[in-house]
Amino acid sequence: MANLNKKQDYTITRANREKMNRHHSFLIWFTGLSGSGKSTIANLLEKKLHEQKIHTYTLDGDNLRRGLTKELTFSEVDRNENLRRTAEVAKLFIDAGTVVIAAFISPYINMREQIKDIVGTENYIEIFVNTPLEVCEQRDVKGLYKKARTGELKNFTGISAPYETPINPFVEIDTVKETPEQAVQKILSMIKSKL
Amino acid sequence: MANLNKKQDYTITRANREKMNRHHSFLIWFTGLSGSGKSTIANLLEKKLHEQKIHTYTLDGDNLRRGLTKELTFSEVDRNENLRRTAEVAKLFIDAGTVVIAAFISPYINMREQIKDIVGTENYIEIFVNTPLEVCEQRDVKGLYKKARTGELKNFTGISAPYETPINPFVEIDTVKETPEQAVQKILSMIKSKL
Repeated sequence: MANLNKKQDYTITRANREKMNRHHSFLIWFTGLSGSGKSTIANLLEKKLHEQKIHTYTLDGDNLRRGLTKELTFSEVDRNENLRRTAEVAKLFIDAGTVVIAAFISPYINMREQIKDIVGTENYIEIFVNTPLEVCEQRDVKGLYKKARTGELKNFTGISAPYETPINPFVEIDTVKETPEQAVQKILSMIKSKL
Repeated sequence: MANLNKKQDYTITRANREKMNRHHSFLIWFTGLSGSGKSTIANLLEKKLHEQKIHTYTLDGDNLRRGLTKELTFSEVDRNENLRRTAEVAKLFIDAGTVVIAAFISPYINMREQIKDIVGTENYIEIFVNTPLEVCEQRDVKGLYKKARTGELKNFTGISAPYETPINPFVEIDTVKETPEQAVQKILSMIKSKL
């Protein structure tokens, strides 16, 4: 079936779209524990970028699981497939000239490596939202840690499944010491030259 | 697991993005036989829209099958899943404020109904590229019809699998009578009020 998959070339390219948008496109990937503050910071970052007329789109784990990946479970295999599809979608958005923001626990180093491989190293910016487990569990905004402790939720990152700390993230946020506003300012200054 | 899927709300919405882009977003879906000219017309349409500073992105069957849907076959079940994922991606692009162009054989009426349901009727514009089978087979740009006739390719639309003609497409193109340029002018005039 190989030749059914022949690549179709289109006239309008990423370069054309970036030129029209007046900025470059790439993926800003937030990783961290559930309740670490990924979505809060991602949302505020998108707001600030939008104010600067940057074309953005946010891919959120909770939202994608209502559509594109709705048949997938939280097993390791399905989490990998969830992230693979997310990365493939991010790749399309990058090609469309968009700054893609993604907020996913993405606990395994090899998962994040796979994402980087799919979108291309030069298009991948990793942001580690480093919030201690105790703090996330104390906040427990969605009541998930409680359910993980009682065993109602299996394979829960930090409780019954590992979180592998990023070795060399582009930006690291310490949400105990930094406010979301400070975190976003730090990210904005770090990505400025890439826009 | 339902509450893991709680919808995350973001500040920047489709309305904000449409306002920044200065046009509305929707999906332009091309359906028709293999070799009918869908991709050629889609490509020219995107070029013309880009010249008008419209933010576009094209989802192409051949290209998506190299990434997001690469594990899927051409069985009816897998074709449905291929189109379901494509529609879910189109929905994200519409939400991002983009005019999405998609060129897929999409032979079954129920498949196309599913796509319309996913993106929302108000966001769905169907274009039927109506080229007679004999013409497509004579062109046979990719050499696929020959392989379908010998049986090397199974489930091939028009030969060994049905194509269900759209009942009420938004635009119908007769590629025997209309050039790609004429087809695109017709589409542009029909979608003008929606932009």
